[in-house]
Amino acid sequence: MVCEGAPEIRIGKKPIMNYVVAILTTLIEQGVNRVVIKARGRNINRAIDTVEIVRHRFAKNVKIADVQIGSHEINVTDPNTGQSRSRRVSSIDICIEKEQE
Amino acid sequence: MVCEGAPEIRIGKKPIMNYVVAILTTLIEQGVNRVVIKARGRNINRAIDTVEIVRHRFAKNVKIADVQIGSHEINVTDPNTGQSRSRRVSSIDICIEKEQE
Repeated sequence: MVCEGAPEIRIGKKPIMNYVVAILTTLIEQGVNRVVIKARGRNINRAIDTVEIVRHRFAKNVKIADVQIGSHEINVTDPNTGQSRSRRVSSIDICIEKEQE
Repeated sequence: MVCEGAPEIRIGKKPIMNYVVAILTTLIEQGVNRVVIKARGRNINRAIDTVEIVRHRFAKNVKIADVQIGSHEINVTDPNTGQSRSRRVSSIDICIEKEQE
């Protein structure tokens, strides 16, 4: 991953514009050049929406440096039976980068 | 995109195992080395789930060669008012590749 050590923003269930603002704040105020946007499961498409809004509406000098997809096993407990079983959850890491002028 | 010209499989609303079988069939029967898996909007996380099932459960010699994300504007018509407006839809293209023995 080219974004090793860059600040991370994890996409959850909040309104997408919250994450857009968080990314812009990190890139502008903290003066960093790269940010990693991470998401799992159903939030994956929201992560891509967020990146696309940043790139097309607010920061046209931001480009996608790297995209990694993967998955890992998690243990889930069935609330009815109390049985535990493993389930695979997909994930995405998107590294975005400010282009140098 | 490294998968230029490779067969495409578009992920929609069918059960995920349909797409897993389609990918395996293409890779094994058609004797191709690369396949592109494409999805838009809410099907994006299903595309990653599909690729992860192929890689972890069925074809351990398959690796992810490239991932591209993007978006494009589409025109949607409001069914109540009949007004047309443009909306941005995110997309993903995942290129998978058989590793050579």
